[in-house]
Amino acid sequence: MSTKTKKQIYKPKPISGFPEWLPEQRLVEQQWLDRIRRVFESYGYCSIETPAAEEIDVLTAKGETDKEIYTLTRLQADEDDKKEARIGLHFDQTVPFARYTAAHFNELVFPFKRYAMQKVWRGERPQLGRMREFYQCDIDVIHVDNLPLHFDAEMPKVIYEALEGLDIGRIQLRISNRKILFGFLQQYGIDDQNKIILITRAVDKLEKIGKEEVIIEILDALERYDTNDNLIADDGTPTANVLNGYGEQNNNIIEFARSFIDIAEQEYRSSDDLKEKLTNNENIDTSSPMIQEGIEELSFVLDELSHLPDHAVKADLSIVRGLDYYTGTVYETQLLDIPEFKSSVCSGGRYDDLAGSYINKHLPGVGISIGFTRLFDVLRHNGYIKNTKKCPTDVLVVLPSEDMRAIANETARALRSNGHNVEVYHAPQKISKQIGFAEKKGINYVWFPDLNEVKNLQTGEQLKTDPKMWEK
Amino acid sequence: MSTKTKKQIYKPKPISGFPEWLPEQRLVEQQWLDRIRRVFESYGYCSIETPAAEEIDVLTAKGETDKEIYTLTRLQADEDDKKEARIGLHFDQTVPFARYTAAHFNELVFPFKRYAMQKVWRGERPQLGRMREFYQCDIDVIHVDNLPLHFDAEMPKVIYEALEGLDIGRIQLRISNRKILFGFLQQYGIDDQNKIILITRAVDKLEKIGKEEVIIEILDALERYDTNDNLIADDGTPTANVLNGYGEQNNNIIEFARSFIDIAEQEYRSSDDLKEKLTNNENIDTSSPMIQEGIEELSFVLDELSHLPDHAVKADLSIVRGLDYYTGTVYETQLLDIPEFKSSVCSGGRYDDLAGSYINKHLPGVGISIGFTRLFDVLRHNGYIKNTKKCPTDVLVVLPSEDMRAIANETARALRSNGHNVEVYHAPQKISKQIGFAEKKGINYVWFPDLNEVKNLQTGEQLKTDPKMWEK
Repeated sequence: MSTKTKKQIYKPKPISGFPEWLPEQRLVEQQWLDRIRRVFESYGYCSIETPAAEEIDVLTAKGETDKEIYTLTRLQADEDDKKEARIGLHFDQTVPFARYTAAHFNELVFPFKRYAMQKVWRGERPQLGRMREFYQCDIDVIHVDNLPLHFDAEMPKVIYEALEGLDIGRIQLRISNRKILFGFLQQYGIDDQNKIILITRAVDKLEKIGKEEVIIEILDALERYDTNDNLIADDGTPTANVLNGYGEQNNNIIEFARSFIDIAEQEYRSSDDLKEKLTNNENIDTSSPMIQEGIEELSFVLDELSHLPDHAVKADLSIVRGLDYYTGTVYETQLLDIPEFKSSVCSGGRYDDLAGSYINKHLPGVGISIGFTRLFDVLRHNGYIKNTKKCPTDVLVVLPSEDMRAIANETARALRSNGHNVEVYHAPQKISKQIGFAEKKGINYVWFPDLNEVKNLQTGEQLKTDPKMWEK
Repeated sequence: MSTKTKKQIYKPKPISGFPEWLPEQRLVEQQWLDRIRRVFESYGYCSIETPAAEEIDVLTAKGETDKEIYTLTRLQADEDDKKEARIGLHFDQTVPFARYTAAHFNELVFPFKRYAMQKVWRGERPQLGRMREFYQCDIDVIHVDNLPLHFDAEMPKVIYEALEGLDIGRIQLRISNRKILFGFLQQYGIDDQNKIILITRAVDKLEKIGKEEVIIEILDALERYDTNDNLIADDGTPTANVLNGYGEQNNNIIEFARSFIDIAEQEYRSSDDLKEKLTNNENIDTSSPMIQEGIEELSFVLDELSHLPDHAVKADLSIVRGLDYYTGTVYETQLLDIPEFKSSVCSGGRYDDLAGSYINKHLPGVGISIGFTRLFDVLRHNGYIKNTKKCPTDVLVVLPSEDMRAIANETARALRSNGHNVEVYHAPQKISKQIGFAEKKGINYVWFPDLNEVKNLQTGEQLKTDPKMWEK
């Protein structure tokens, strides 16, 4: 047994769920964020940044995510301070965007196209893979009264380009339109809003839990209503009726569920294929205006995306999105070549009204959001990200001796003014040590200011040159 | 009197102290942040980003800013959750940087040059001009055991270039070295650490309150000690002794203060001028190794900055920085052409040990920090910032009719692939309305896809061209 005499050292770690990266990883993260931003801006989206914190009343206006909010309190707040409004960290970028749009309504130009790339926070229980702080990259367009449908097609266009730029294999956008589901529900006489939400959430799990489980979940959800459509219980456990088989009264629902899942599981190659298959399906009443609208809108979006590669876009009626506010187009995104990333990397849809409630306006919108940090983390964790540089430096200027410092500085200045990132080595140490430092940091070029020569460490090539003229 | 029939509308505002900008302001803010980042990277600084939150114990390790910390609590935390470590938002970027360096010590390459451009939060009482959320732009270099002095010169070099890129007039870096003050204190027999801190804080106010007030404040601070150097009271009110005239026992301190303020108020044109003036000043014992070191270090830094314009660098011994951890070089920065911005826009200095206490190492460093949001806000508020564009769009492609949509999209795609930021107008409305939209958003070029013509809205010039070839 060895005796450890070394002092036990306490290394403070970042808090669980709050990821942080090494410089070489951060360099890749920055490149990714830059590329995404570049694409967002190439479509004219403008950046806005909202504060990290909002009033709790704003955050909980939709009343659905109480559990996840971090509230802020001053460490040494006194009685006076407690009179102030309670504030908390935003848990997404949509709620603050709604508040922002209402607050600055008269100063914005509509249709308002904005992107946001900020961190959001969720007070989740610490758990593997659950993040409490992460970047989201969102685009949204909102307009007053009516928002043209072609923006529904712009979202996946922009996102496809943005993700394509990250070099993470083939991207597939899966698109549906909730009006088809809603029309279907009408057709089967299901019109209670709460029921529709419960059914939507169940159908959303189709790919994960399969057809039979979805039906059980739908029936279970509906069993919680009595015959007067009042909610009886909502504790999430299956009721006796469900476990003992589907009650007689639910035949209608079973029929609905089986028919809908049938069309949700089909493949649609194009808008024509979609129209043909749905029209020829005898379980669908395509005379329903709602269903027709859904099919028309989805077809328009597919047609607008026909310039993308075959694998890039798919109509997928199983995409319904669990959240309750989408009213038309809905999106999810799959990485076809990254089996480790199973969920949707980027989701969104059209909503009927974003911020109207604040200012007595009707503000429909459409938006989509990349779950950036989760994507980056999964790819990093599974070795898909190559990080070869530990710094942005292109050239290390060596310092042959202390009295060469002025010349080394001068060389560095000349190189910088040509757009290169340059460090001067910090001490007149052995040249081999200085080159070793460049290698360790992933700096590819070493400059000898006494010789006016530059060495490419990858090829070994060494050239005489002028710092004012040199190009990589 | 008019009768308002319009419904009273509640417009939710951002929380006081948490600034947010309109798109046109944000566009300038982004340009500024991009330019600063560009300069930081050109010197080889790598980016790191630390989480918004740290354990309270980490944040209060230096025990000085309790009042300002925002703690985080989950809105619906239960008993179990309360066992977790308490966390709070970081109030600067230095404390998290220290924690980061300790946590990843073995994976970093030293000297470690990093920049950080993140928001920080301070739970200040709401008050005009006090911000609770703001960007800081920091650079720091740390090394193990010894950090070469030329990094002390690199800080102002980088910062000068970074601020110069913002086009905000002449920048002046004011530099001193605390060793001169410390040596001076030794010379007068003042060696108690707490006293030194109190004196340093008083001298720091020289420019603001003047010589006599500084002396009163120093004496007052010292009066709070009894003859055994125990602190008697620290409530900030002047003691009777001070108000009734300086006590006999304080002659030494008065002499110190007058002599130090004398050299602090002098102008030094160069390192030679500095050396000459201090050597010829009979109140200074330049044989003191501490004072000599201070003069040598400050001269070295000045000499390394001799390539900058005359106004850009000034030795200013009145700069001592109130905070207590600087041990050598200290910096402040003045905007010479912006009278509305009175305080230092960018400050920092050398510290003896950053994170060593965590990991049993000696890690000296030097760093400097731009108070970005305050700078931006003051300049914005006083009309120094021109924002002419409300979006990043270069070209608006008009939509002459619905059946031209495919061609308009095609045109936009071609322009984008040449690096332009392009929007297609959202509806086939009157051309004058579409042009009006471009004007309102500050978009300079309007493209007519039916004619393959582009119009420059500033000059009125309209040209036939090809979207694949066109350059602005």
